Formats: sequence, C-alpha cells, structure tokens
Amino acid sequence: MTEAARPTHMLAEVEEIPAAAARFLDGAREAVAAAAAAMRAVDPGLVATVARGSSDHAATYLKYAIELAAGIPVASVGPSVASIYGRRLRFDGAACLGVSQSGRSPDIVEMMRSAREGGALTIAIVNDAESPLAAASDHALALHAGAERSVAATKTFVVSILAGLALLAAWRDDRALAAAVARLPEDFARALACDWTPLADRLAEAGSLYVLGRGPGWAIASEMALKFKETCGMQASSYSAAEVLHGPSAIVGAGFPVLALGVGDAALPQLVATADRLAGQGAEVFLTAPGGGPGVTRLPAVEGLHPLTAPLALAPSFYRFIEGLARRRGLDPDAPPHLRKVTATL
Amino acid sequence: MTEAARPTHMLAEVEEIPAAAARFLDGAREAVAAAAAAMRAVDPGLVATVARGSSDHAATYLKYAIELAAGIPVASVGPSVASIYGRRLRFDGAACLGVSQSGRSPDIVEMMRSAREGGALTIAIVNDAESPLAAASDHALALHAGAERSVAATKTFVVSILAGLALLAAWRDDRALAAAVARLPEDFARALACDWTPLADRLAEAGSLYVLGRGPGWAIASEMALKFKETCGMQASSYSAAEVLHGPSAIVGAGFPVLALGVGDAALPQLVATADRLAGQGAEVFLTAPGGGPGVTRLPAVEGLHPLTAPLALAPSFYRFIEGLARRRGLDPDAPPHLRKVTATL
Repeated sequence: MTEAARPTHMLAEVEEIPAAAARFLDGAREAVAAAAAAMRAVDPGLVATVARGSSDHAATYLKYAIELAAGIPVASVGPSVASIYGRRLRFDGAACLGVSQSGRSPDIVEMMRSAREGGALTIAIVNDAESPLAAASDHALALHAGAERSVAATKTFVVSILAGLALLAAWRDDRALAAAVARLPEDFARALACDWTPLADRLAEAGSLYVLGRGPGWAIASEMALKFKETCGMQASSYSAAEVLHGPSAIVGAGFPVLALGVGDAALPQLVATADRLAGQGAEVFLTAPGGGPGVTRLPAVEGLHPLTAPLALAPSFYRFIEGLARRRGLDPDAPPHLRKVTATL
Repeated sequence: MTEAARPTHMLAEVEEIPAAAARFLDGAREAVAAAAAAMRAVDPGLVATVARGSSDHAATYLKYAIELAAGIPVASVGPSVASIYGRRLRFDGAACLGVSQSGRSPDIVEMMRSAREGGALTIAIVNDAESPLAAASDHALALHAGAERSVAATKTFVVSILAGLALLAAWRDDRALAAAVARLPEDFARALACDWTPLADRLAEAGSLYVLGRGPGWAIASEMALKFKETCGMQASSYSAAEVLHGPSAIVGAGFPVLALGVGDAALPQLVATADRLAGQGAEVFLTAPGGGPGVTRLPAVEGLHPLTAPLALAPSFYRFIEGLARRRGLDPDAPPHLRKVTATL
C-alpha cells in the first residue's frame, strides 16, 4: 500500500480536532459549570484520577495542570486496586476524575464506583454520555467528539484534556486559563499546519526513539510514545527531561533519535540542556522550541500559548505527522495489529 | 572481555542483599518505630511520594503496598512541581515519603522541603543518614546498606522497599506483614539461588523486550526495564498486565520476548491470561509463577510469600541474572555509558 492509497479514519479524525474542540466548548458549558460548582463545594484536598491507555496520558496532563494551577496533589489510582484487589480507598474530602473514551472498561467503572462509595466526588470525562462510567459518576463531561473509528485515539484524547482544563478554569475561576482554553480550537487549526516532515524523514525506517517532555509536556510525550508503538511498530519510550538522566540515557548513542517537547514555560531551559547533553552523546534530537546547539533540529509549533495549553497544542501536529509516518512505513494507522477499539480489562 | 573476567561491584552488592536487609532490620528498629508513631498521630488521608529513577520504582511499590494494606491513596509528586515550577502544594493532613539512595539530588530535596512547608509529615528513606534529604525531613530511615559502588542501584533499591514495608507494618500494626518483612533476608538468600539462565539464553542478543507485572509487581517490572536499559543497552518497557492490552501489545509479534512477573496474589489469573494472549501473538513469554500454556516458559521464584513481599523477592534473582547477562553481552554492569552514581537534576 502506498502512502497516498486512501484517506484514513485517523486522518479524518485528526483534521476534525479543531471542530470537535469547538463543539465541546459550545455544548458542555452547563455540565462544566455544574461540575465546577461541585468542586468548589467539596474543596478537595486530593484529586484522584482513574484511566488507562491514552486516557491515562490525558489524566497525567490534568494532574500537572491541577497541581500547578490549583496547588492540590493529584494521585493516579490503579483501577486494579478495586477491580483485582477489592480494596476500597479512603476518599473523604477528595474528588475523583475518571477518563475513558468508551466509558466501558469494567476496571475503570469499578474503581469509580469504589471511589464514590469511599467518599469522593466523582466526575467522568467520557465520549459516550450513555456509558456505564457516566452512569456511575456524580457528574459527566460528555466530549461530543463524535464517533472515533480509528483504533488509535486522537480527537478524544485532545478533547478529554480540553474538557479537564475547562473544568479546572471554571473551578478555580482562572480567567487566564479560561481564555487560553477558549482559543484552543484556533490553536489546534494552526497546529495542524505545522509540518514535521524532517522528523518523518529521519524516522522512516527507525526502530526506536525517546520522547521527552516535562510537566504536562511529559504526558504528551507519553501519548506520543504510545502512538509510535501502536501505529508505527516502533519501540518508543517517554521520559521527563530529568528522569531520562537517571538511567535511560545509557542507551542513547550515535544516531539515536530523540523528540524533545519544549514549550515556552519554566521547564524549557532544563529541557534544552538535556537535549544538548543527549546530542553530545550523539543523539539526533528534534526540538519543538527555540534553542539547542549542534545536533538539535527545530520542529515548528504554535508559539505564545499559555503554559498549560501549549503542550496540548503539540498533539494535532504530531497526530498528522504520525498518521503519514505509519502509511510511509507500510502500515494501516486505523487498525494496529492485535488491538480493539474498546479494551475491556479487569 | 569474557564473562568470567572479574567479579563486579554489582555482583558483590547483589550478593550482599540478604545481609544488608538483615542489617536494616536490626539497626533501624527505633527509627521505624518513631516514624510509625508519627504516622499514627497524623493519620494521613493522603501519602505523597517523591523520588526519581530506581528510587521512584521503590516508591511505586510502596504506593501499592500502602493503598492495599492501609486503604489510603498515594500520589507520586513530580519533584519539578517545586524545583522548576515553584508551586507549593497543599499537604495538610498528608504524609510525604522521599526515597533517594544519595539523598543529594536538588530537586528531591527541594520538593521535600516544599511538602514540609505545605503541612506534610515528611519521612526520608535514604542510604546516607547525613544527606541533605535526611536533614530536610521530620524522620529519616537510614538504610545502613553500605556504600554502593556500582552505578546501577541494587541493594539500596531492595532495602528501600524493605524499609517502607517495615514502616507500613509498624504504622498499621499489621502482624502478618511484619512477619513477612522479618523473613525477607532469608527469602532474598533463597531468591539468589533461583537460576534464570533460560531467560539469559533467550536474551543474549535481543534488542528489546516487555516486562509485565501488576500492582507492586508492576513497580518491580519497571525497575527491571530500567536495568535492562542501563546495564544491557536493551530497549525495555514495563507495563501492567492490563495496560499492555491498551495499545503496547501492538508491537508484540513472533519471537518478541516478554518477562511476566507473576506471584501468588489476586492478580495472577489476569496476568497469566495476558501471558497466554501475548504468547498467542507469537511472543516468547517467561513467567515467574505456575500456569500459562504453549509459548510460556516457567522461571523459578521463591514461593509461598506474603502478596506484598513476593514481588520484592523477585529482585535478587533478577539482579544476579542481569549482571551475568550484561557481561555476556560484553558490557560492564558497574559502569553504564553516560551515567553517574549521583544524578543531580533540577
């Protein structure tokens, strides 16, 4: 199959991201306001997240956003604590965010039920408003993203994070974040026009790479690493730009590809220093921000964004890039081997 | 360099694990009792952990142990929240566990200081009792593990988890767990005698693999994946036996090696089912527990242990195995490329 063989569901869904984001912002005002009011009433000392796969990367993004914007610690709770080990956690004074595209994986639903019984305010971020996860939660933010036919989640990942950020902005009455969220549909459209062909040329036949980020950017790095595996069959690992120096940098030698997600936030100097250090070991580093010395190639990105939306705006550029890379590698990005759209785990 | 060239620091430190564990249990009684009394006094509604690298895998193990034994949610807090973003989190009524071999990485120390100022009871698990991390904390559990000269942490990783489990048992007055912890030195000695040569034969020239676990076993899987990278230059990824089905299983094809960490706990049936499913895709699966069909090879492990100590008892078997595998691959396990013993990150 050649690259231009046919349009994929994945590409159509990636191109739909700006419209899906705008649709959520228009359609979910009341649901967001109600969930935000509940958050203010509870004033949680802890937020827990429950999710798997791409949705868990969305939850990690929201963890950093909530910690940085609200100053409240966020715990990722393994669904197995309820579904396998049958342990109910103490959640008095806590809120629990469940994130799932389908809202149907039994372990996620079970953990959310357990959290509610344990005293948590429960809020589901879910594409299907009629799903068991929505039914098991106090509030549900329905994504209105439309059906997703590609197995690889794209628009639902982006809109899940958008939904969480909209909730955060309303809950904390954070005007700057609310304004940044409101302009995301436009940012996503600009991101779709960012051309990452230099990275595709480098990775056309590569077997592995590292993806680096920091804070919310690390969550996006983790989502990208998963997509490299799912759609391109590549061994990709994600690390924070600090964590990679505590061991994983050992395998970074001559020609090893590294994608470093820099945005204009407080973490950029440390991320660029790490990029330079790995380039010094011989890595071929691609960086989505200005800076970096020899061995570091700049990739275009939308600039001037809020620190809590900038990493998310990298996702559409990446999704468009990797859909093309998968086809270039002779793979069908809509149907990765061995995977199904709704993964039901215990 | 041939396999038998010289004894390594790593091997000596791995063989020292049973003695180091016994030394901790003898020497740290008072420190453990004092920290446990402080935990009972605070009765935390949240435990946060702060760590990086192997120590972060130790923290993940303790997260599952605390959630399952105490029913209290545990949040892993990124050190960057304090060190890079300068955000103080709300930690009233919380406890914060910092885990670090050296106790010297500035970001870990800064996050612990911030947690203490934010209201948390702070407890450091650290090899060096004179370190800045110990000084910045309300309580310090010194590992008494002796100097660790190999860059790859082994005995300090094992004793860090042992220390956390001893604290948990004392805090919750959990007699069964206390008894299981007391016998760990003996279990570790038996684990050192478990021979994983079949896995070494399969991986002598392999480039990548997956390591799977569940609950605390997933933390051990993550530590193993890091060691495969550090000491053997292999692209290794760790997943929970549920998470791997949400995307990463796409790259598991014919001959792909998978190490599945099964122990006698509630998660074993799901883990064995995942092992069988991946073997059905063509994977060569190695399993540390009974069960599994065609394509699944059994590795020996100490049996009949407490569910919260059994995964930890896999570590000595693994460390002995991987030290030999690294030498067999012509590498020096004491000195991975590009790494230093004390990694100072911001």
